[in-house]
Amino acid sequence: MNMVTTVAVAGASGYAGGELLRLLSNHPEFEVGAVTAHSSAGDKLGRHHPNLIGLAGRTLQPTTPDVLDGHDAVALALPHGASAEIAAAMSENTLVVDCGADHRLTDPDAWKQFYGTEHAGSWPYGLPELVHADGSKQRERLANARRIAVPGCNVTAVTLAMAPGLAAGVIAPTDIVAVLANGPSGAGKSLKTQLLASEILGAASPYAVGGGHRHIPEIEQNLALAAGAPISLSFTPTLVPMSRGILATVTAKLNNGVTSSDARSAWGKAYADEPFVHLLPEGQWPTTAATVGANTAHIQVTVDERAGRLVAVAAIDNLTKGTAGAAVQCMNLALGRPETLGLPTTGVAP
Amino acid sequence: MNMVTTVAVAGASGYAGGELLRLLSNHPEFEVGAVTAHSSAGDKLGRHHPNLIGLAGRTLQPTTPDVLDGHDAVALALPHGASAEIAAAMSENTLVVDCGADHRLTDPDAWKQFYGTEHAGSWPYGLPELVHADGSKQRERLANARRIAVPGCNVTAVTLAMAPGLAAGVIAPTDIVAVLANGPSGAGKSLKTQLLASEILGAASPYAVGGGHRHIPEIEQNLALAAGAPISLSFTPTLVPMSRGILATVTAKLNNGVTSSDARSAWGKAYADEPFVHLLPEGQWPTTAATVGANTAHIQVTVDERAGRLVAVAAIDNLTKGTAGAAVQCMNLALGRPETLGLPTTGVAP
Amino acid sequence: MNMVTTVAVAGASGYAGGELLRLLSNHPEFEVGAVTAHSSAGDKLGRHHPNLIGLAGRTLQPTTPDVLDGHDAVALALPHGASAEIAAAMSENTLVVDCGADHRLTDPDAWKQFYGTEHAGSWPYGLPELVHADGSKQRERLANARRIAVPGCNVTAVTLAMAPGLAAGVIAPTDIVAVLANGPSGAGKSLKTQLLASEILGAASPYAVGGGHRHIPEIEQNLALAAGAPISLSFTPTLVPMSRGILATVTAKLNNGVTSSDARSAWGKAYADEPFVHLLPEGQWPTTAATVGANTAHIQVTVDERAGRLVAVAAIDNLTKGTAGAAVQCMNLALGRPETLGLPTTGVAP
Amino acid sequence: MNMVTTVAVAGASGYAGGELLRLLSNHPEFEVGAVTAHSSAGDKLGRHHPNLIGLAGRTLQPTTPDVLDGHDAVALALPHGASAEIAAAMSENTLVVDCGADHRLTDPDAWKQFYGTEHAGSWPYGLPELVHADGSKQRERLANARRIAVPGCNVTAVTLAMAPGLAAGVIAPTDIVAVLANGPSGAGKSLKTQLLASEILGAASPYAVGGGHRHIPEIEQNLALAAGAPISLSFTPTLVPMSRGILATVTAKLNNGVTSSDARSAWGKAYADEPFVHLLPEGQWPTTAATVGANTAHIQVTVDERAGRLVAVAAIDNLTKGTAGAAVQCMNLALGRPETLGLPTTGVAP
Repeated sequence: MNMVTTVAVAGASGYAGGELLRLLSNHPEFEVGAVTAHSSAGDKLGRHHPNLIGLAGRTLQPTTPDVLDGHDAVALALPHGASAEIAAAMSENTLVVDCGADHRLTDPDAWKQFYGTEHAGSWPYGLPELVHADGSKQRERLANARRIAVPGCNVTAVTLAMAPGLAAGVIAPTDIVAVLANGPSGAGKSLKTQLLASEILGAASPYAVGGGHRHIPEIEQNLALAAGAPISLSFTPTLVPMSRGILATVTAKLNNGVTSSDARSAWGKAYADEPFVHLLPEGQWPTTAATVGANTAHIQVTVDERAGRLVAVAAIDNLTKGTAGAAVQCMNLALGRPETLGLPTTGVAP
Repeated sequence: MNMVTTVAVAGASGYAGGELLRLLSNHPEFEVGAVTAHSSAGDKLGRHHPNLIGLAGRTLQPTTPDVLDGHDAVALALPHGASAEIAAAMSENTLVVDCGADHRLTDPDAWKQFYGTEHAGSWPYGLPELVHADGSKQRERLANARRIAVPGCNVTAVTLAMAPGLAAGVIAPTDIVAVLANGPSGAGKSLKTQLLASEILGAASPYAVGGGHRHIPEIEQNLALAAGAPISLSFTPTLVPMSRGILATVTAKLNNGVTSSDARSAWGKAYADEPFVHLLPEGQWPTTAATVGANTAHIQVTVDERAGRLVAVAAIDNLTKGTAGAAVQCMNLALGRPETLGLPTTGVAP
Repeated sequence: MNMVTTVAVAGASGYAGGELLRLLSNHPEFEVGAVTAHSSAGDKLGRHHPNLIGLAGRTLQPTTPDVLDGHDAVALALPHGASAEIAAAMSENTLVVDCGADHRLTDPDAWKQFYGTEHAGSWPYGLPELVHADGSKQRERLANARRIAVPGCNVTAVTLAMAPGLAAGVIAPTDIVAVLANGPSGAGKSLKTQLLASEILGAASPYAVGGGHRHIPEIEQNLALAAGAPISLSFTPTLVPMSRGILATVTAKLNNGVTSSDARSAWGKAYADEPFVHLLPEGQWPTTAATVGANTAHIQVTVDERAGRLVAVAAIDNLTKGTAGAAVQCMNLALGRPETLGLPTTGVAP
Repeated sequence: MNMVTTVAVAGASGYAGGELLRLLSNHPEFEVGAVTAHSSAGDKLGRHHPNLIGLAGRTLQPTTPDVLDGHDAVALALPHGASAEIAAAMSENTLVVDCGADHRLTDPDAWKQFYGTEHAGSWPYGLPELVHADGSKQRERLANARRIAVPGCNVTAVTLAMAPGLAAGVIAPTDIVAVLANGPSGAGKSLKTQLLASEILGAASPYAVGGGHRHIPEIEQNLALAAGAPISLSFTPTLVPMSRGILATVTAKLNNGVTSSDARSAWGKAYADEPFVHLLPEGQWPTTAATVGANTAHIQVTVDERAGRLVAVAAIDNLTKGTAGAAVQCMNLALGRPETLGLPTTGVAP
């Protein structure tokens, strides 16, 4: 397939929408179609995303099925709860990629417990590099899909950090502990006091502590697929003063007799051929800066013999590999393009 | 005792030395005596610490016993390995407070394993709020002491976060996991590439991962005193782009039958009368910004029933409560002053 | 006067209000009275200012004359337009210090041009260190005042940078150019997209460019008092990613025959005895970090012979010397206390 | 010419070198050849630039003529003083693009005054968008060049901000004032205390104040070409806490009778067809964030009638349009490729 594919972006005024447009406008075979917003409909796009110089003159249209219909693909960057209705109105042949949470969870009870509403049904899950317990990868489930649920950004970081060790049986699934350093762009462009620059500059602060974060059931779902067994997870995100980036430090109990070399080889094997997920050379630890703007995850693992735990660290850009880059990667897969087409792998650092 | 106490500061050109001078110059009963440095001897102090406007014209003297002798108290802010010799040359009646690591560990083998040299011997340990298993507090060991080892900054954060739960028996000592967000001033003013602003701005990155950080045996020593039992600890610090601050997120396995209310009451009881350690109102989580420049630790705890873990978070300023404030607090105690004299409790925020 | 003075703070939930409370709670002769807010009335203060640990349990009352009446002093940290009515309801003997703009300008036309409403009348202007053309200082106008208008933060920085040179006749008043680097806390806690952390981290951006900023007539008013002649000013503030701080870089045409030594001596003479304004040693340039949390301005000047301009740079903390510290300094003066009482001069750095 | 061009990078361990490699590795018709360094020779490239995941395994070779010879092009990212000797050893047919200062100035006296050494001779100057007084653009001087001097980063920002107004005669050349906000990556990876993260986080501070910055004669040289007359410039750079970016706020006296509309049309006309320099829509001011990682300059101008000055603001990424992007743009021009080939125009924001 060589013809140009048109992609509409719903929710284009936000950070995830802006990142989708940045990537799509640099993609050699995709073309930006309608760009839509809710309260910002009617504005020029450049007012919201001055970095998108080539699209600055485009006018944001309202987010309605009429406007979105007729594209080859539609990317949704909407608050959760808003995508089911839109998706239902799109043709079955239109690829709909949802960056929101609505269709990620397979268990309606988990959805209800964490989101408090009725479940909208699950879609194929868009984390191609997820290792299953049977050795397969998630990307096999995405070819020719026409509905894809893009993972949450924290979920991508923690899942990529831990799945290989669970699939290889080197760590226990029962007591995983994840603490994350997060840039505030992951919380979107919402006008909340705790997201003001004055609150975040010079500050590190945790949120959703104690098991209430909505990404928890999604991580457990992924890691259970990797482990072939239920998961127990303690998860704490922390806001720090960088606009983009997630650094996930994840530890798990080592299974008996596992050496450091066993551990590294589990991750090395899982990611050897992955274009976007990299186990760093031994001794080099990830930094979020190295992934800024790239659809790349950097991973490192080691064994802490004193503590009896394996430590894995993953760094991603929450807006790229954590959201919009993953969405484009899934579009490539679903539409038969090379998986890496149009996606940057080199971060903008320093 | 109402007369003025003279305090010399060795290592005055660095960040810990500067913070000591900031606090001492605002202390109503202490007076800054000699200020010394190594390679910066001969410089005006204002060149290194432009914030210390009242001391800017002072000249840094060389760090020698001669210069330091004759003060009522001497605060050492030197690289580890440098304080034993200095201390030996000071009169027994002179209070020597060491912000370095040399005299913190009681176990010579732990010292040798983590520092690689012979142990210089241990001094009374300067964390007044440390709860022991027998219900006593560490401050009892500090009255009239003339040698005090000030704790490491990470150690203070993790110890204050966890000790009450161990002393009260609500959590298990065997599988504690701590992940920290750290401002780079904790690493001092060393000229290392990884401490350059261009490397740290926009970046979160872990260091000393996997059990090798030198603060680990010190945390274990403290928490073992609290638990009355050996400790197992996974510990990962993370550099983030704020100049000061430590946010420690620490989790431990809940003991059977412990409720959230039991947990909170353990911390509440331990810190109820502490002037510098505050259990925040339920639902409010610490932020490092609230502690900047203050000798204050903010703490919160909750129970994650899903994960079977207690989560405690502590925020401190690494240079104040984590180093120089603790040193002044110890001087107050050792010299019979009110423990809080001259020490700020309100952070400079936002 | 040795008795304790009670001070109420109106607008206590915002950043200026919080800084007033931080300073007042550390003041040896002032006591915090009522703390009031508008939409946050009823909240605990600690929810808005977790740094103010000693006042955290106080409840915010509504901002009404009834609540504020009966204190010795009232500090107003309200949006402009809100203070006239409150002040009118306070007793003439009550000291009212207004951190807002309403009573700063003496020219009703300038007020109307920049604020668009009727002028509320001018109050004695609270910048004690302002040098007048006749050699007097502004502090003489503040003794026993019962209404004081605290200067704008940008105004304080630019005025302190330039006034000595104008008063001494070393620079021309007709073509002054000021460009500022500003921390976002100067814009308050308003929920605006451009103040979100994601917008400000990693970004420098100007605002109110081209002569429209409301601080311009106030700077011109001050500098005209210094010069004894009308002023022409180009003024551009720039948001940068630090929570607090203003760095003002101000240049003016050198008058004929003025040497670098003449210039420095003008500033040196003006500020020699000032406790809060410091001309740095030759060759050392101000950094905002050195003034964080302090009621201090750091100043440096030099002559650029190639360009025929004098360059003066001033650094202040916008919330301390730029707002709340200045308010407390004025209270000290008006109430016959030592001008420096309770005010920090050492910044919290690094 | 469709064949692949090989490009060696000398000084590849630094920030400019890393940015060259980021851009070259994404360029469709250039291929990274030798990568060289001085003290880091022998290291793996990934140790210095973890973002360059595709080149991470490359070994840094020593910076010698032997290693660099034989490539189609050589990009030099070396300290000033180091490039003349290297360039002399390269074939005349090899394109040598120098990111250092050695060959930028045409006036040997200006070089000697600001750099203190003998001038190495000038090369064609690599700022394609520079408007000359005769209406021509600098790019005409670059076709088929085999030696090109890439402009300094501050120079690019100030020149692009001001040249159109000088060329069109709407502003006076005699009293230009430029103040810049600069990310520290412009100062390179040098180990200097003032570049440590602890010094720069939370701080704005000027440097090289008063006419001594080495970029001044280069700006004057450019603006004199635009004006057809000598220039007088006051120039002050300011370090602020963002890793990349320059925001230049530049003002100049308006010529008589010039309206705001005249001014805008001068800039509009100069940059209408430029792919990398954009006059923003009226009322929208540049932010550095919008240019991060892009070879783009964002410009806005307005007239301040009150002050009698025109204000122009330019935002660039100092490492991209300010250094490495400009180098690649020049290579494209000199080697007959489309000027925009392989160069990103959309910044990574937020």
